[in-house]
Amino acid sequence: MSSLLVVGSVARDTIHNNQGTHPYVLGGSAVFASLAGSFFAPTRLVGVVGSDFPDHEVQLLRDKDIDVSGLEVVDGQTFHWEGRYSDDLTSRETITTELNVFADFHPKIPDAHRDTPYVMLGNIHPSLQIEVLEQIREPKLVIADTMNFWIDGTPKELRAMMARIDLLVINEEEARQLADEHNIILTARKLLSMGPRIVVIKRGEYGALLFEGTDVFSAPAYPVDKVLDPTGAGDSFAGGMLGYIARQDRTDAATLRRAVVYGSAVASYCVEGVSVKKLVSVTASQVEDRYLDFARLAHFATDDDLARAAEG
Amino acid sequence: MSSLLVVGSVARDTIHNNQGTHPYVLGGSAVFASLAGSFFAPTRLVGVVGSDFPDHEVQLLRDKDIDVSGLEVVDGQTFHWEGRYSDDLTSRETITTELNVFADFHPKIPDAHRDTPYVMLGNIHPSLQIEVLEQIREPKLVIADTMNFWIDGTPKELRAMMARIDLLVINEEEARQLADEHNIILTARKLLSMGPRIVVIKRGEYGALLFEGTDVFSAPAYPVDKVLDPTGAGDSFAGGMLGYIARQDRTDAATLRRAVVYGSAVASYCVEGVSVKKLVSVTASQVEDRYLDFARLAHFATDDDLARAAEG
Repeated sequence: MSSLLVVGSVARDTIHNNQGTHPYVLGGSAVFASLAGSFFAPTRLVGVVGSDFPDHEVQLLRDKDIDVSGLEVVDGQTFHWEGRYSDDLTSRETITTELNVFADFHPKIPDAHRDTPYVMLGNIHPSLQIEVLEQIREPKLVIADTMNFWIDGTPKELRAMMARIDLLVINEEEARQLADEHNIILTARKLLSMGPRIVVIKRGEYGALLFEGTDVFSAPAYPVDKVLDPTGAGDSFAGGMLGYIARQDRTDAATLRRAVVYGSAVASYCVEGVSVKKLVSVTASQVEDRYLDFARLAHFATDDDLARAAEG
Repeated sequence: MSSLLVVGSVARDTIHNNQGTHPYVLGGSAVFASLAGSFFAPTRLVGVVGSDFPDHEVQLLRDKDIDVSGLEVVDGQTFHWEGRYSDDLTSRETITTELNVFADFHPKIPDAHRDTPYVMLGNIHPSLQIEVLEQIREPKLVIADTMNFWIDGTPKELRAMMARIDLLVINEEEARQLADEHNIILTARKLLSMGPRIVVIKRGEYGALLFEGTDVFSAPAYPVDKVLDPTGAGDSFAGGMLGYIARQDRTDAATLRRAVVYGSAVASYCVEGVSVKKLVSVTASQVEDRYLDFARLAHFATDDDLARAAEG
């Protein structure tokens, strides 16, 4: 077993969903990804919060054995995002984004963490993602997430970041936007040509696609009948994926495929509760059960089929 | 090996796509489904055409060993549909629908075909689908397809039809419309409560979901990088699925799962050519190769995972 380092936002979110309003609940890409990673391997979080950040939220992370020695506390208010989901939870509008102390964030990786082999660069300014890499010594695998805001706003920095990572995780719409292609195969090929040797395209309720060279893996989504809050699903997915990779301490094709499914398993729990509520109550054994649910969900080939497929 | 009977439209289509205009090419749900089924098992087609229908199109079906003794030829013009696809092929508009001889179609099942064990009711008026069932003796499995036109226009007849079939195949948007639900699990449960014991929801480039009781199977889509014409993809899918079931002469859960994948394999070829062009040039061995591509595409679980999943 190895360990992972997660850098990203730590936030207090105000979420409006079909159940009502949930003010100042725990959020942020680094929080969801760390909680997801912590099911599998020792997890280190790097981020920043303001002096308003409640102690019990830090304790909640510590209780999951997440190393928060890289969590800076500075004067001011914590990053606050407020958003409203449509009743069917398929779309959301941002009401306010108050960057607060996050506006001046420059990630400082504690010296003891600079040898972490598996690194997740959460969805922050691509130049900050590069700043993290400058502080890390010979990582085995670096995953980065990004979003339309950086695709539109800082395309040059985004391309510089993409040239330095191993695996890009990106949602489908943003992948098409970044590649300026509609067809998903052509999109993936274009993203691979921009630097990362692996691309994972998140398709929400349609699962995920993993591309590495000419190899393609299609992971199903778990059919959840009680989605409450999609916030953090993508971050849980990436964090769970990297956590599994760190636990196995391998990056071969078969491990990556299973990592995508473990990430999906964690994300499928994440959306069943508001904020981190479900994520912190789930056990590693429940994550394993859901992984097996995915195996049942996707299985069709006979042993003979698989043997013939492996030859082809 | 058993046999299948396909009832539906036989059409001449005029297709406008990003390659140009393709006037009066072969189309119709019964044509695509029969061609797809013929890869696997003896296939019988029931439909109607006008006196304008070219002999060489009938010969093309015969060359695929499709039994066309149930293809009626009557005075008048063949059903003609004209449509235009958007450049990315994700949407289409209908320019004209000329029902012609199809307006008075009442399917007559030749006596020699009334014992066919596997029956596909293509997307026609639900009352005509019921008329077919009145003429069939103890089928082992009946599949029906439908569309928004019947959901809106003939809801009562549609419900009567659904009560008499085994398997409903329907696209995702229309499934949600028929169930009046957004969540896909709740949608499927509602459709199952309307009669069919199996529901297959087609999700286009996102694959397909199979529901039987509480069992769910998620099939990937083959990532096609050269889609030319999506016309007939859904019919090829259903026809291929039923053809495989007829070949195996089984309807157990594992066979149904593989049938969904074989249907997807045939449909993935269908969209690579305009009209039936690709479908008629593909060999059974190429269909098998693509099935194995699906097996590679979806595979992640170890033997141990699958053994544990089977226990769970």
